[in-house]
Amino acid sequence: MALIVQKYGGSSVADAESIKRVAKRIVDTRRAGHDVVVAVSAMGDTTDELLDLAHQVAPISAPRELDMLLSSGERISMALLAMAIHSMGFEARSFTGSQAGMITDATHGAARIVDVTPVRLREALDEGAIVIVAGFQGFNRDTRDITTLGRGGSDTTAVALAAALDADVCEIYSDVDGIFTADPRVVPKARKLDVITSEEMLELAANGAKVLYIRAVEYARRHGVMINARSTFSSGQGTFVLGAGMTVPAAMAATLEESAMEEPIVAGVATDLGQAKITVIGVPDVPGKAAEIFTVVAKSGANVDMIVQNVSAAATGRTDISFTLPKSDAATALRALAAEQAHIGFESLVHDDQIGKLSVVGAGMRTHSGVSATLFEALATSGVNIEMISTSEIRISVVVRGDDLAQAARVVHTAYGLDGEVDAIVHAGTGR
Amino acid sequence: MALIVQKYGGSSVADAESIKRVAKRIVDTRRAGHDVVVAVSAMGDTTDELLDLAHQVAPISAPRELDMLLSSGERISMALLAMAIHSMGFEARSFTGSQAGMITDATHGAARIVDVTPVRLREALDEGAIVIVAGFQGFNRDTRDITTLGRGGSDTTAVALAAALDADVCEIYSDVDGIFTADPRVVPKARKLDVITSEEMLELAANGAKVLYIRAVEYARRHGVMINARSTFSSGQGTFVLGAGMTVPAAMAATLEESAMEEPIVAGVATDLGQAKITVIGVPDVPGKAAEIFTVVAKSGANVDMIVQNVSAAATGRTDISFTLPKSDAATALRALAAEQAHIGFESLVHDDQIGKLSVVGAGMRTHSGVSATLFEALATSGVNIEMISTSEIRISVVVRGDDLAQAARVVHTAYGLDGEVDAIVHAGTGR
Repeated sequence: MALIVQKYGGSSVADAESIKRVAKRIVDTRRAGHDVVVAVSAMGDTTDELLDLAHQVAPISAPRELDMLLSSGERISMALLAMAIHSMGFEARSFTGSQAGMITDATHGAARIVDVTPVRLREALDEGAIVIVAGFQGFNRDTRDITTLGRGGSDTTAVALAAALDADVCEIYSDVDGIFTADPRVVPKARKLDVITSEEMLELAANGAKVLYIRAVEYARRHGVMINARSTFSSGQGTFVLGAGMTVPAAMAATLEESAMEEPIVAGVATDLGQAKITVIGVPDVPGKAAEIFTVVAKSGANVDMIVQNVSAAATGRTDISFTLPKSDAATALRALAAEQAHIGFESLVHDDQIGKLSVVGAGMRTHSGVSATLFEALATSGVNIEMISTSEIRISVVVRGDDLAQAARVVHTAYGLDGEVDAIVHAGTGR
Repeated sequence: MALIVQKYGGSSVADAESIKRVAKRIVDTRRAGHDVVVAVSAMGDTTDELLDLAHQVAPISAPRELDMLLSSGERISMALLAMAIHSMGFEARSFTGSQAGMITDATHGAARIVDVTPVRLREALDEGAIVIVAGFQGFNRDTRDITTLGRGGSDTTAVALAAALDADVCEIYSDVDGIFTADPRVVPKARKLDVITSEEMLELAANGAKVLYIRAVEYARRHGVMINARSTFSSGQGTFVLGAGMTVPAAMAATLEESAMEEPIVAGVATDLGQAKITVIGVPDVPGKAAEIFTVVAKSGANVDMIVQNVSAAATGRTDISFTLPKSDAATALRALAAEQAHIGFESLVHDDQIGKLSVVGAGMRTHSGVSATLFEALATSGVNIEMISTSEIRISVVVRGDDLAQAARVVHTAYGLDGEVDAIVHAGTGR
C-alpha cells in the first residue's frame, strides 16, 4: 500500500461531469489499496471570472482581498469533489489551505511555502478517509490571513503535501499525456517520454515547456518527491520525473515501455516565442559598463535570460550588447535604459520582438561530445540563421527568427532521433 | 460617533454595479463619522447555483462538504465589497465566519451560534478599517470545521455581531423599504411602519411576513439589539424594531414621521398561503386521544400551528380535530396518522391545502378591547367565512379559504385604519 498525492487542474474539474470522472479515478486508486491525498484547482475558468469581477468593482485590487476572493474557487471544487466521492460510497474530507497546514509567508498573490503541518490530513488518512486539499492557497501565521501561491500554485501544493506526508509519488494530472520531446503543436512527431530527470525537466520548463511549473519541479527535486505527470483523460502511465537516486517503482516500471530504460542523450526540444531581444548599441568598451546596464535592467524588474557581447571594434572603442527577456518586461526595461543613456554613454537601443528561442536539453550532454555540432548542422542545412547562443551543462539554446522557430524545432527533433512513429495527438489548455 | 452593523442580502450585491452601490453606502456611513461592520450574503443566485452543482455531482450531499461549498459564496461577495471600498480610498478588511469569531455548534446546515469572539474585528476597527464579515457562516471549535447557519443566516450573523460588539444599531438592508402594515403585493394600500416592537415583529414574521427572519429578531430581542430594516435602493429611514426599553436615537427620531410616535393598536396584518389543514374525523371522545394524535404528528417532524376541536356529538361519543401545518409537512403527517389509525381509533382523515391564514398583530391588543370584534365584523360584511380561530396575547389569527385571503386582508387592513394614502410600491425577491 502506497500513499499517493494527486493533483487535478482546472480543466480536469471544469464541470459536474468532469468532477465525477475525477472522483472515479480517485476512488479507483483507493480501491487499489492506496491512501490518497488530492490537491485540486478551481473549476475551469473560475479564476478568470473572479478576476474579471474584481476588475469590475475596483481597477486595482487590494492584494489581501484578492487572495480571499481567488481562494474561494478551490473551496468550491474541493467540496464538490468530496461530495462526488461520498456518493460513490467512500469517505472523503476536504480541507482549505489553512486547515491543511499550508503555512506561507505574507506575500499576497505570490506567497512562498515556509512550513507544511498536515496534522489534520494525517488524522483523516488514519481514519481511512480520502483527503481533498484546496490547491493554490495557504495561510500566514502572523497576519492570520489567507494567501495564494501564484502561478502554478496547485502543482506546488501537491508537491509540498507529497513531501510533508512522505508520499510515494505525486501524480500531476492535466489534459496532456505527460512530458513530450517537444510541444506536439509545433513538432507533430513529438514523443511522450516515459521518464525524465528533474534537472532536464527544469531546463525544459525554464525554456518554454508548459506542462509542469518550474517551482513545483524545484520543490520536488529539493525534497526528493517523485512526480508523475499524466492525463486525466487517458489511462496511460504518463511521465515520471526522477530526482537524484530515484528509480521508478517496480510495479510501475513493468508497464513502462522498454525504450524508456535506455538513456537518451537528448531528452527534448523546447521552444519559446515569449522572449524579446534588446540590443544596446555603442557601449563604451571599458570595464563596468555591462554591470551598469544590467543593474539598470534588473532594477526595472526584468528577468534577463541570454546575454551576448560582440567583439569590440578596436577603431571606435565601442561594442554592442544584446540580451533577451520576456516580451512583457521589454517596455519597462527600455524606458529604464533610456533614462540612463547619458550616464552609461551608449549610442542607441534596438528592440526586436520577432525572435524565437530553441533549446535542446539532455543530461547525456555531460558525457557525450558532438551534441552541439548536430544542432548547428541541422539548422544550417535547413537554412535557419542563428542569432545568439547560450549553453548550460545540459542545455544548448539558440535564438532564431520567430518565423523560423517551428521549422527549426522539427529539423532538430529529427536530427537527434527523437521523432516518434506516429503524430502525437494535440491537446490544448493548461490548469493553474 | 456610533458603531453601526449593516447587513446586505444577496439581491443587494447581485453584480459588480450593485456591489459598488453598496460600497458607496458603507463609505457614506463611515464619512458620517461612524464605525462600520458589514455582514454580507452571497451574490444574487450564487447559493442556488452552488446547490445545483452539488446536486449534479451527488444526489445527497455530505453535510460537512455542503457547508464548505456554500460558505464560499460569501467569501466572494465580501472580498469584492472590500475591494470596492478600497478603491474609494477607505481601508476595508474582510473576515470569514471563523476569522470573525462566529463560533457555532457542529450542526452542519443549521448551526446555532454558541459564542461570538470578534477579537480581530475590534483590532481592525481600532485601526480605522471598515470591517466586512461573511454572513451565514461559522466555525465549530471541536471539529474545527466550517458550518452554515441555515435560512436567514446572514441576518443572524449581523445581529450576533451587533450584540457582541455592543453596536448602536443593526441595519438590515434588503430590496424593500422596511416593515409594512401588510404585504404590499396583497394589500396595495399597505403603509411602511416607522417603528414596530420586537414582539409584534416576531408575531408578524411567525405568521407569514417575510422581511426579517424570526431567528434574527429573537436574537436581537434577547440581546437588546436594535434592528433597523431598510432598503438598499432608497434613502428612507426604514423601520426600527424596538425591544423592551429601547427608544429610537434622537438623531434618527428627528427624521421619522410624527405619526410613528403614536401607539397604534394594530401594527399590521400578515397573510400566509403556505399552510394546509388536516382534519381527523370521528376521534373517540375519551381523555388522551388528542395527545396521541399530536404525538404521532410531532414524531413525523411536522410543526403544528393552529388546533381546533369540535364540540363532541353526545350521541356518537366521537369528535373531530382539525389542525394546520406547513404544506410541505402535510404528506408526512398524513402517512404517520394513517399508520396509527387502528390504534388511535379515528374514522378518517381529510386533507385541505386550499386554506389561507390571516393574522392581525398589535401590542395594543393587551390594553384595548373590541379588537377581535372589528376583525370578525369586517370579514362578515365582506362575506368571508372563518374556519378556524386562534389568538395570542397580541395576535388574532383566522383561517379562511385561500381564494378569499387577499380580499380579507384588504378589508381588515381598512377596518383597522391602517390604509396609507397612496399605493405602496411593490418590490420582489429576498436575500438569505
